[in-house]
Amino acid sequence: MSYENDIKEALAAYKAGALSDEEVIARFHQLNMTDLGFAKLDHDRSLRRGFPEVVYCEGKTISQAAAILTVLASRHKNVLGTRASEELYETVKPSLPDAVYYERARLIVLEKEPLPKDPDRKIAVITAGTSDVPVAEEAAVTAEIMGNEVIRIYDVGVAGIHRLLGKVEEIRSANVIIVIAGMEGALASVVGGLVDKPVIAVPTSVGYGANFKGLSALLGMLNSCSAGVAVVNIDNGFGAGRMASIINHLR
Amino acid sequence: MSYENDIKEALAAYKAGALSDEEVIARFHQLNMTDLGFAKLDHDRSLRRGFPEVVYCEGKTISQAAAILTVLASRHKNVLGTRASEELYETVKPSLPDAVYYERARLIVLEKEPLPKDPDRKIAVITAGTSDVPVAEEAAVTAEIMGNEVIRIYDVGVAGIHRLLGKVEEIRSANVIIVIAGMEGALASVVGGLVDKPVIAVPTSVGYGANFKGLSALLGMLNSCSAGVAVVNIDNGFGAGRMASIINHLR
Amino acid sequence: MSYENDIKEALAAYKAGALSDEEVIARFHQLNMTDLGFAKLDHDRSLRRGFPEVVYCEGKTISQAAAILTVLASRHKNVLGTRASEELYETVKPSLPDAVYYERARLIVLEKEPLPKDPDRKIAVITAGTSDVPVAEEAAVTAEIMGNEVIRIYDVGVAGIHRLLGKVEEIRSANVIIVIAGMEGALASVVGGLVDKPVIAVPTSVGYGANFKGLSALLGMLNSCSAGVAVVNIDNGFGAGRMASIINHLR
Amino acid sequence: MSYENDIKEALAAYKAGALSDEEVIARFHQLNMTDLGFAKLDHDRSLRRGFPEVVYCEGKTISQAAAILTVLASRHKNVLGTRASEELYETVKPSLPDAVYYERARLIVLEKEPLPKDPDRKIAVITAGTSDVPVAEEAAVTAEIMGNEVIRIYDVGVAGIHRLLGKVEEIRSANVIIVIAGMEGALASVVGGLVDKPVIAVPTSVGYGANFKGLSALLGMLNSCSAGVAVVNIDNGFGAGRMASIINHLR
Amino acid sequence: MSYENDIKEALAAYKAGALSDEEVIARFHQLNMTDLGFAKLDHDRSLRRGFPEVVYCEGKTISQAAAILTVLASRHKNVLGTRASEELYETVKPSLPDAVYYERARLIVLEKEPLPKDPDRKIAVITAGTSDVPVAEEAAVTAEIMGNEVIRIYDVGVAGIHRLLGKVEEIRSANVIIVIAGMEGALASVVGGLVDKPVIAVPTSVGYGANFKGLSALLGMLNSCSAGVAVVNIDNGFGAGRMASIINHLR
Amino acid sequence: MSYENDIKEALAAYKAGALSDEEVIARFHQLNMTDLGFAKLDHDRSLRRGFPEVVYCEGKTISQAAAILTVLASRHKNVLGTRASEELYETVKPSLPDAVYYERARLIVLEKEPLPKDPDRKIAVITAGTSDVPVAEEAAVTAEIMGNEVIRIYDVGVAGIHRLLGKVEEIRSANVIIVIAGMEGALASVVGGLVDKPVIAVPTSVGYGANFKGLSALLGMLNSCSAGVAVVNIDNGFGAGRMASIINHLR
Amino acid sequence: MSYENDIKEALAAYKAGALSDEEVIARFHQLNMTDLGFAKLDHDRSLRRGFPEVVYCEGKTISQAAAILTVLASRHKNVLGTRASEELYETVKPSLPDAVYYERARLIVLEKEPLPKDPDRKIAVITAGTSDVPVAEEAAVTAEIMGNEVIRIYDVGVAGIHRLLGKVEEIRSANVIIVIAGMEGALASVVGGLVDKPVIAVPTSVGYGANFKGLSALLGMLNSCSAGVAVVNIDNGFGAGRMASIINHLR
Amino acid sequence: MSYENDIKEALAAYKAGALSDEEVIARFHQLNMTDLGFAKLDHDRSLRRGFPEVVYCEGKTISQAAAILTVLASRHKNVLGTRASEELYETVKPSLPDAVYYERARLIVLEKEPLPKDPDRKIAVITAGTSDVPVAEEAAVTAEIMGNEVIRIYDVGVAGIHRLLGKVEEIRSANVIIVIAGMEGALASVVGGLVDKPVIAVPTSVGYGANFKGLSALLGMLNSCSAGVAVVNIDNGFGAGRMASIINHLR
Repeated sequence: MSYENDIKEALAAYKAGALSDEEVIARFHQLNMTDLGFAKLDHDRSLRRGFPEVVYCEGKTISQAAAILTVLASRHKNVLGTRASEELYETVKPSLPDAVYYERARLIVLEKEPLPKDPDRKIAVITAGTSDVPVAEEAAVTAEIMGNEVIRIYDVGVAGIHRLLGKVEEIRSANVIIVIAGMEGALASVVGGLVDKPVIAVPTSVGYGANFKGLSALLGMLNSCSAGVAVVNIDNGFGAGRMASIINHLR
Repeated sequence: MSYENDIKEALAAYKAGALSDEEVIARFHQLNMTDLGFAKLDHDRSLRRGFPEVVYCEGKTISQAAAILTVLASRHKNVLGTRASEELYETVKPSLPDAVYYERARLIVLEKEPLPKDPDRKIAVITAGTSDVPVAEEAAVTAEIMGNEVIRIYDVGVAGIHRLLGKVEEIRSANVIIVIAGMEGALASVVGGLVDKPVIAVPTSVGYGANFKGLSALLGMLNSCSAGVAVVNIDNGFGAGRMASIINHLR
Repeated sequence: MSYENDIKEALAAYKAGALSDEEVIARFHQLNMTDLGFAKLDHDRSLRRGFPEVVYCEGKTISQAAAILTVLASRHKNVLGTRASEELYETVKPSLPDAVYYERARLIVLEKEPLPKDPDRKIAVITAGTSDVPVAEEAAVTAEIMGNEVIRIYDVGVAGIHRLLGKVEEIRSANVIIVIAGMEGALASVVGGLVDKPVIAVPTSVGYGANFKGLSALLGMLNSCSAGVAVVNIDNGFGAGRMASIINHLR
Repeated sequence: MSYENDIKEALAAYKAGALSDEEVIARFHQLNMTDLGFAKLDHDRSLRRGFPEVVYCEGKTISQAAAILTVLASRHKNVLGTRASEELYETVKPSLPDAVYYERARLIVLEKEPLPKDPDRKIAVITAGTSDVPVAEEAAVTAEIMGNEVIRIYDVGVAGIHRLLGKVEEIRSANVIIVIAGMEGALASVVGGLVDKPVIAVPTSVGYGANFKGLSALLGMLNSCSAGVAVVNIDNGFGAGRMASIINHLR
Repeated sequence: MSYENDIKEALAAYKAGALSDEEVIARFHQLNMTDLGFAKLDHDRSLRRGFPEVVYCEGKTISQAAAILTVLASRHKNVLGTRASEELYETVKPSLPDAVYYERARLIVLEKEPLPKDPDRKIAVITAGTSDVPVAEEAAVTAEIMGNEVIRIYDVGVAGIHRLLGKVEEIRSANVIIVIAGMEGALASVVGGLVDKPVIAVPTSVGYGANFKGLSALLGMLNSCSAGVAVVNIDNGFGAGRMASIINHLR
Repeated sequence: MSYENDIKEALAAYKAGALSDEEVIARFHQLNMTDLGFAKLDHDRSLRRGFPEVVYCEGKTISQAAAILTVLASRHKNVLGTRASEELYETVKPSLPDAVYYERARLIVLEKEPLPKDPDRKIAVITAGTSDVPVAEEAAVTAEIMGNEVIRIYDVGVAGIHRLLGKVEEIRSANVIIVIAGMEGALASVVGGLVDKPVIAVPTSVGYGANFKGLSALLGMLNSCSAGVAVVNIDNGFGAGRMASIINHLR
Repeated sequence: MSYENDIKEALAAYKAGALSDEEVIARFHQLNMTDLGFAKLDHDRSLRRGFPEVVYCEGKTISQAAAILTVLASRHKNVLGTRASEELYETVKPSLPDAVYYERARLIVLEKEPLPKDPDRKIAVITAGTSDVPVAEEAAVTAEIMGNEVIRIYDVGVAGIHRLLGKVEEIRSANVIIVIAGMEGALASVVGGLVDKPVIAVPTSVGYGANFKGLSALLGMLNSCSAGVAVVNIDNGFGAGRMASIINHLR
Repeated sequence: MSYENDIKEALAAYKAGALSDEEVIARFHQLNMTDLGFAKLDHDRSLRRGFPEVVYCEGKTISQAAAILTVLASRHKNVLGTRASEELYETVKPSLPDAVYYERARLIVLEKEPLPKDPDRKIAVITAGTSDVPVAEEAAVTAEIMGNEVIRIYDVGVAGIHRLLGKVEEIRSANVIIVIAGMEGALASVVGGLVDKPVIAVPTSVGYGANFKGLSALLGMLNSCSAGVAVVNIDNGFGAGRMASIINHLR
């Protein structure tokens, strides 16, 4: 009963003459978009971009977010909700019993048909410290549900550079690298200098006073002296995972 | 007489017994690094990262930058100098007669053996306005010298969205996309929503007062509502071209 | 017993000789201004500006805000309280039983004699996402109580530009347009390029880290590459609704 | 030989059978857009928005800006170049002998067929000080070329409030009001409280150190305690003139 | 038992020969300073500056603040605690039964011998809005306990300039003026232009998003186009009251 | 031929019957305000505030500033131009031969009838360093022309606290104190703690990188731990001199 | 069973032939690093830097922090946890009964074998106010556990400079000085000018509005006019204590 | 004829009875301080702090700076002028023929009796790039004239970490380390993690747009994840050299 099946059914009915030209177009239109008033769900995106619309849950009421997740789950195989509270998860659980909640990453994941993963094209997710792990998990789980093998290398910040150097081979085995760091964000520059793969840097809001909620790491990463580093928003693990997945699926 | 040849010669001499163990290692060391006092040139990088060290000329004196470019040119086939003044170009021209100067992009390019380009993997460079073109050219020429076909699509900012929509097919034909915009930087979000390829966004310092030297576009792009967008530094065309090339050469 | 009636009564008494020159002036003065010590209520404004003074409730104590609302309600037909807490609403409800509370918009509305609305001059309220809806409702309800037809078009952000393009005709049917967006605020530029009507842009504080409580959308909108866009304060739905209403009532 | 005539000619030829369906569409396309490589000129805009594309000259080379102005002038009756240097004016003068240069406003204006102006719908342009006049002239001349009567009221800042109060009747006679002020930008709030017309506020970068290039006036105006005030970018006189004109032409 | 009496007693004992040179100096030292470890109380200040040390209670623990207040009260006639919580007041009340708590101003006041007030030298405390009243009360009560007559004029912001103009005579009757405003802080400039007395401006953190916790009012007031305005810290009612009192006591 | 004389003449003519009621009022109006189009000169201010309007020359063209200075000089005894360039001075010198130019303070001073100065009420102008002297001179000369004795105490910054302590008696002899400092602005706090007189603090833009054009000193002074300190704009020596003079003339 | 003993045991076994070359290296590796997945503990650091890894507890979950502390305590004599909540302390107390909790400094300290302290090389910890004491205690306790004598001199801010001057001899007796201040941070400059010892300055987030969470003190200290002052992060008492200890142990 | 000799002469004269008590004190006073009006030179400082007052030349006029340098040179053996222009050097050269000018470091150095240097206590000055060299030279020359051996290690930024790792032994041989870096400033963290010596970090204003004149490196270094790092002002090579020298001379 997924969106793809509905499209195929409509096409078959049209071919069989059961639907006129006008009818099949109207059917397509209706299938493509669910309008909830406060939100417009774009089902066609799963075809166009290889994955259903992701729900950014923060700023929505519990009932809005729950409605959106439920509608998407009724039409797609795999659904992802980011910045999801535990309360939201408890609300949607009865209708989506297979959904999993990643508490630290604040993700709700429904993965009915996991996408295939290419073992030769891994994404490495590296953090400077333990406090960066929640953002890292948001990135890693996002990359996984989007069909990527993920290597996790946590707590290898530059203050003890040998911890990082001991992992260089493992890092170089990856195809795309996500570096997650707060404070001064120096890890991105060091990793960027060690590899010839694209580095997606995620500044985190971790640190003492003058990190100004992630500004220090953000500016640090934007000013990285290593080429081959590009940056996403502060604490935006999802964005990094999504970007890395897009790069990793290029052929 | 390039670096690669020197390495091979040393290995051959070693095999032939003309160089001892210690001698060949010392020779390697000497070949790998030219120490000019104020700068350490890392010739091995062209092997490790597929391209020689790029020279960021700003902040260096004319004589320092000229010395670095000349040394690199004596050891490598292709050399790139960024943020280069015309005065610097005039200084190095006598010793590097094949060097080309891109005035608006402020690049010095020496391309003795152009790298091969895969016509099926193009990089699109898109600007919002005409004022963004210098940064775009820095990105485009960088990508070209690093071995990529480039499509230039200039002046398609979102204030006249049909100009952009008329180019969607051309944009979608690219493998990696660089979006360059000042003011509010909205072009990155709109392009990001139209394609399923990685978008590298470059904020520029173009605009009226409250763009605060590129801050508005920078924040706009970091906060892009489209996934699949990552950002480099303000006016950093080189960084975008380099990042796009790294992604484009993944196999 | 409204303010307008009181003025008329005083004038009649004056004409009839029941009030001397001095007395009628003192009466006017007394009618125009209620001085509560901590607040000076300016009743004449409803004549001068077509609507009674609006109460900005934040920063006032519950009892101050309740007193102001109650006095205004005793003198005017329609009253609006913005940034009102539910607790305030519960406090004023007994004395103002007809007042309505809009929870997400945080408005208290008392509308005893709704102002007439011109169906040919509509105000469109457009949001980029679902999370912008509370600010949008503040704008929309403000515009409605000030005598305007409102069209709501929510969740049409630029990441999926076809959702917006599908609404262009509806947007163009409006006389004034309010665009509400967080993150990079790009929607204002795109809409501004599609219409030849004034666009009032409201940045919201919705988004990940580097939106810095709305700064990214604010700067984005101020730097809009589309002419015909002006900006109000972050999250200031009321200001946008009021401004749009003033423009919409120009003849 | 204007764009409008070309369109009409093409339609006549089509009706007469001289052009096929494909030919007339191609002709339309060619007429609508001049592609200069570094810029795409959108001639259709003069029909859609009532005025030709305005050229923002800053950031373009002299030769780029001159080329764009010349092409537009060959196709349209009225052309406006903003942020234009005297050098640019000297460059285009030979080919556009009727163009006028407003030095302080930095505008190049070519007005072959002035648009009609409604004497009952005036735009008032008000400045706090003499130093704000260049921005004010950019706004005023923009509004005039777009078909509006303009009243100029300069140097009536709030430090001497009686200068402003003496002008209240004149200000109230306008339909739309542009307030231009640097320093603290307080004039916008005071004017906003005196009128029931829309106020477009333009912060300027005029002032001592802590105005931080216009930030103080910008924040002041965004936080105006008067409703009915919306803000454009720092020093953006053109944007204010354009916005005021759009509002003033609503019917 | 106040500090002044203790000093006099010691001097008398010294004169009478009961204390040696060394003893009287040691006695002075001990009288001047109470060292609580975490705080050094400087009793001599009441002589030097005409008032005892004021206790800034925020950032201190309840027990620290209570200890300081109690020691000061045992040695001085009048004591002032700023930024005091109700919890602190409840803690000190048993030992300081005459202390009064001003809830909105967050002041604890112990005034055993009120200082004389010169009725011809009044301090006016003016606010733009009702939300500024807590800061205004901090300023007003501070000025009063330091021996000044205070006139309170609240809610006369510039959005309704006639409310302010109606109070000009009252304002001009004061010797020193404190202006308290949030949002754009324009009231300081307007008042500064109406009087020839010193204006102490206090920005408040009242307002919508882009006031950035008082930054907009702070910058507005620092950039006041009226001479004769100086500024204290955001929400610093105490500082304004203290400064005004110092000025008001100049002879 | 000064403004005051003109007023008296008009009154005499009125008394003598040579001017009607309407004529004398019109004459007053004409005398009070010279409208130069780009500027409105308010001659009445010299009566109301004890000094003619001061001309802030920056941001005005040379010819505008010269016109304003010349008109004021024709009507008033003493005229002050701030932020005046040497070029402006050379321009006005022929018509104002008595005008003096203070190069480092960038002031043009015309002092035909110096105001009386009370030797018992001095204003002390103190700088932290030699680099702060230009701002200090702007303050000192302003205070002098407005009728105040000035003590200059330069280069007594807190890094060598004994230099300051050696001047305490001299500082305490003043009635009002202006403290001028760049870098961290600490001098204001230290002086504020040593005196019981009002301190007007002027941050300067002097210093290494992270002073951010005076922001460090500005914030430092606003956060002064000493009560009795108020702040004017960065580098605003004039504002400090004017404020100090107003305070110093209170009776 | 500490880390040092384990190393010695392994070496002895190796010497005795009980461990092969490979085995002893693997044993070293295993001893050096405990990998908890979310954290990599680097035991060798206690040898290299003279002290075990310090645990920054903020941003870690209670269970993560507790695990790290427990592992470290099993291998080292002295352990320090910073930014520790009381809840964390309650969690680790059962397994680490000797651990002490410093509530205001938010430190967990386990000190089984206190390091020796050189009484001739003291570190002075000085605060401007009482509110700075928590940060000061973080610095002081850190310095003590790292083997330094500490002198505490609290509440000697520059507003009452004689309190500080009375402590100069005591301050000069120290070898390294830590200055902790909020507001304008002036104490660092004044102390820096009084001594010829290194001053480590710690800005705190104490103060009224425009201290912007410590920015004012941070900028003030960075711009200190006294040489010999270097700055650590806002509220970073630990960093100051650590830095002072490193300097103090230089020989 | 140095200051020290003058003091000794005066003491001898006093001992010999040639000077009275009053006379010798007055003589001391006169010797200690030269008052040039715009500057107060504190000769005693060379005794108290081991070195004469350093002249910060920026912001002073050429003639002021020249006067100060000349006076100091007449009284002291060694003099240092920072931020000195070539023009200043040309001005003082005739009177100070032994003065040396360091162009890139912008230092004027007069070193008549070089201070002794301890070869076992070196200061390492490390830069990330070539563009940081001018600041590094300011630090290095400052440290040298203050009596320290200096090791220069330039262009070892973290983008090529092996360049740095190859220098670790050399770095560890130093007693104090100065790290100078622009862009993200990551070098400070990496070095801080490799050594157990104090690291003084100097952010530079080198880099692309979003380094915001050194802010990125400043925040990066303040947020360094390595303990043992303290920061001085942006581009403040002198401050770092001075601080390192103070630390290096501790015994």
